[in-house]
Amino acid sequence: MELLYILLVLLFVTRLFGELSVRLGQPALVGELVSGIILGLIANHYATTFPLLNHLPENPVFQGLTDLAIFFLMLLAGLEMQPGDLVKAAGSSFVIALGGVIVPLIAGAALAWWFLPESPFKIPQTLFLATSLAVTAVPVAIKVLMDLGQLTSKIGQVIVGAALIDDVIGLLLLAILTGMIGGGNTSVDIFSIAILLAKVLLFFGVVMLSGVYIFPRLSQHFQFLRTDEVDFTALLLVALAFSILAESLGLHFILGAFMAGLFFGKMAVNSSAYDAVKVKVSGITSGFLAPLFFASIGMRLNLDALGQVPIFVVALILIAMFSKLLGSGLPAYWLRYTKKDSLAIGAAMSARGAVELIIAEIALGAGLFLKPKPPPAIVSNLFSSVVIMALVTTLLTPILLRWIIGNTSGTPTRT
Amino acid sequence: MELLYILLVLLFVTRLFGELSVRLGQPALVGELVSGIILGLIANHYATTFPLLNHLPENPVFQGLTDLAIFFLMLLAGLEMQPGDLVKAAGSSFVIALGGVIVPLIAGAALAWWFLPESPFKIPQTLFLATSLAVTAVPVAIKVLMDLGQLTSKIGQVIVGAALIDDVIGLLLLAILTGMIGGGNTSVDIFSIAILLAKVLLFFGVVMLSGVYIFPRLSQHFQFLRTDEVDFTALLLVALAFSILAESLGLHFILGAFMAGLFFGKMAVNSSAYDAVKVKVSGITSGFLAPLFFASIGMRLNLDALGQVPIFVVALILIAMFSKLLGSGLPAYWLRYTKKDSLAIGAAMSARGAVELIIAEIALGAGLFLKPKPPPAIVSNLFSSVVIMALVTTLLTPILLRWIIGNTSGTPTRT
Repeated sequence: MELLYILLVLLFVTRLFGELSVRLGQPALVGELVSGIILGLIANHYATTFPLLNHLPENPVFQGLTDLAIFFLMLLAGLEMQPGDLVKAAGSSFVIALGGVIVPLIAGAALAWWFLPESPFKIPQTLFLATSLAVTAVPVAIKVLMDLGQLTSKIGQVIVGAALIDDVIGLLLLAILTGMIGGGNTSVDIFSIAILLAKVLLFFGVVMLSGVYIFPRLSQHFQFLRTDEVDFTALLLVALAFSILAESLGLHFILGAFMAGLFFGKMAVNSSAYDAVKVKVSGITSGFLAPLFFASIGMRLNLDALGQVPIFVVALILIAMFSKLLGSGLPAYWLRYTKKDSLAIGAAMSARGAVELIIAEIALGAGLFLKPKPPPAIVSNLFSSVVIMALVTTLLTPILLRWIIGNTSGTPTRT
Repeated sequence: MELLYILLVLLFVTRLFGELSVRLGQPALVGELVSGIILGLIANHYATTFPLLNHLPENPVFQGLTDLAIFFLMLLAGLEMQPGDLVKAAGSSFVIALGGVIVPLIAGAALAWWFLPESPFKIPQTLFLATSLAVTAVPVAIKVLMDLGQLTSKIGQVIVGAALIDDVIGLLLLAILTGMIGGGNTSVDIFSIAILLAKVLLFFGVVMLSGVYIFPRLSQHFQFLRTDEVDFTALLLVALAFSILAESLGLHFILGAFMAGLFFGKMAVNSSAYDAVKVKVSGITSGFLAPLFFASIGMRLNLDALGQVPIFVVALILIAMFSKLLGSGLPAYWLRYTKKDSLAIGAAMSARGAVELIIAEIALGAGLFLKPKPPPAIVSNLFSSVVIMALVTTLLTPILLRWIIGNTSGTPTRT
C-alpha cells in the first residue's frame, strides 16, 4: 500500500518535471533527476513524516525495481543502436571517439590522483572517476540533435557514432573496474589485467558469435511457435543469459543486457518483430522504470558536496566539459571539419548522464566510496560530485550546442 | 546474480511448457502452472542444491515481481474487456452469469461449511472457497473459443459476456472478503456488511465517474505533452491511483488495476493510443511477468493435498464443474438455447484459473489458511486444493467444449 503510494507520487512528479524539462529545451532526464533531488530534500527534511520515502533506497522491492530499470535501460540502449551503425561510424567517428575517451580518461585520472587520499581503493576510485568522465550520454546527444534537426546531418551522424563507441569503451572500462572491486584485487599487476582482458574478450567473443551466427538461425523458428509474445520473451531470455555470462566472468550484468539489445536487431529477427519488441521495451522503460531510476539517483544526491568539496566539484565539471571539447573537437578539426562544426562535435560529446549514472550507482553499491575508513570528505562526496557533474554537463550540452549550431547552420564543411 | 539465473530458468521453462501446452490444445496458462509444480517438486527434493529456488516465494524481490505481475494481469484483463462489451452482454448473458455465480456460491459455501472446522476464520474461509468457485477464467474461455472459431458466434458472445460479469462479481466478493480479513472482523453482522457495501459502492462510484467524465477530458490534453510514452504512464498513474483508493477503503488493489484497464478504453483515449498501450501491457505481462506468477503459484502447490484430503479435493472439483454447468447451462436452456448450446455455455464457464488464482494468492498472503492453530489438514491444504481445482477445470474445459461443440456445430439455435 505505502509502496503503491510512493510509486504514484514518484511517477507523477518525475514525469511532470520531465515534461517541464522538455518544454525548457532540456532532455526529460534532467527533469527526472531534478525531481529526485527535490523529493530527496523533502524526504530528508520531513524524515519522520515520510519514513518510507526517506528509506526508499534501502527498500528491497524498490531496489529490485531500480535494478530492473537498469536492465531495461541497457537493453533499450542496445536495441536503439545497431551493430551496423557502429561499423558505419567506424571511420572518422572512431578517431573522434578515441580522442573523446583518451583525453577525459587521462584528465580524470590526473584529477583523481591529485585529490584522492592514499588507500587500497585509490586505484579503483581513480579508474571510476576516469571512466565516468570517458562515457558520453548517447540518448542526450540523440535527443538534442533531434531537437535541432541535425540528427541525420553529417555532424549528427559522426556525433552519434562517436558517442556509441565511447559508451562501449566505457562499458569495457567498467568491466575492468567491476573485476577489480569484485576480485578484491585493487592493485594493478600485469597478470590480473591480462586475465580481465581475457575474460572481456571471452565475453565479447561468445556474445558476438551467438549474435551473428546463432540468433538469426534460432529466430527463424520463432514463427512456428504458437504462444504469444515469443519475441519479447526471446529477447529477455537472451539478455538474462548474457547478463549471467557477464556476471559469472566477474563483469557487470549491464554489459549482457546491452549486448543482447545490440544483437537483437533487424539482422537477427525480422524487421516487424524488432519494431514490436522495441516499442514494448521503450514503453516499460521510458514510461515506467527509467523515471523511477533517475529519480532514485537524484534522491541519493547529497548537495552538501558543493559546500564540502567545492573546488573538486568545480574542477570535475570543468574537466568534464573541456576534456571532451578538446578530445573530440581537435580530432574533428584535424579531420577537416570547420572550427564551428568541430566545436559542435566536442560540445555534443560532453553530455554525461545515462550510462555514467548507472556506473556511479554500481560503484556506490560495491562500496567503492567507503575507504579509507572513515572516508574523508572527498571520497564520501565522490558519488554526489559525479552526479552533479552529470547533471551540469547534461544541462549545458543542449544550451551550448544550440548556441554553436545556431551560428553554424549553413556553414559548409571544409574540404 | 542468483536471481538472474532463476529468472532465466523460470522464464525459459514456463514458456517452453506454455508452448507444449498450446500444442496439446490447452491454454498456455496450464503449461505455466505445470512447469511451476515440477520446479517446486525439484526445488523441494534438492533443497540443499537449489536453496534460492527453494526459498523463492519468500524472496522479497521475487515477491515484488509477482505483485507487479498481478497488477499487470488485472490491468490487461481490464484493457481487454471494454465497458461497452459488459453493457452489450447485459441481456441474456446477465441471467447466465448470475446463475453461474449463485449456484457455485451456494454449493461452495455448503461444501466449506460441511468440511471446514469451527474457528474464528470459518466464515471468511467459507466465503473464500465460495468466491473461488464463483469466478470464471475469462482468458481461458476467450482462448478456447478462439481456437474453436466460436469467439464471434452467438454462444461465444454470450459466454464471454457472462464470464466477464462473473469475474466482476467475483472481484466484488473479494472486496468483501478482503474487508473481513483486513478489519479483523470475521463475523457477519448486518452493520459491517453494510459499511463494506457502502465502501464498495463508493469505490465503484468514484472510479466510474472519473472513468466516464474525467478521463476523456484529461486525455484530450495528452497530445500537447512532449515527453515520450505519455499514454503508458497515464495508464499506470490511473491504475496506481485506483489501487490506492481501493486499498484505503479496505478493498484489494487488484480491483483498482482492473478498473483502470476497463476505463482506459477507446472511449477515454483515442483508438491508436489504446492499441499502443495494450500492446505494451500485453508484452510485459504475457511475455515476462504472468508466466513467472503462474509458475510461482505452481511452485507453492503441495500435491500432498491429494493424499491428505482426497475426498475434499474430489468433491471440490466435482462441485466446480457441475455448479457452473448447471448454474449457467440451465438459464441458457430456459433462454431457449438448444440443449447442446446450453451444455457448451455451461462447460465454457467452468474454467477457473486466472482471477481465482490471484484470489487464492491474496488469501494465502493474508494468512487465511493458518487458523485454527495448528491448522487441521483440511485448512492447511485449502490453498493447494483450490489450485488443483483451477488446474483441473482449466484442463477439462477445452476438452469438454471441443467435444460438445464438435457435436453441436451447425445445430441451429431454438427459436
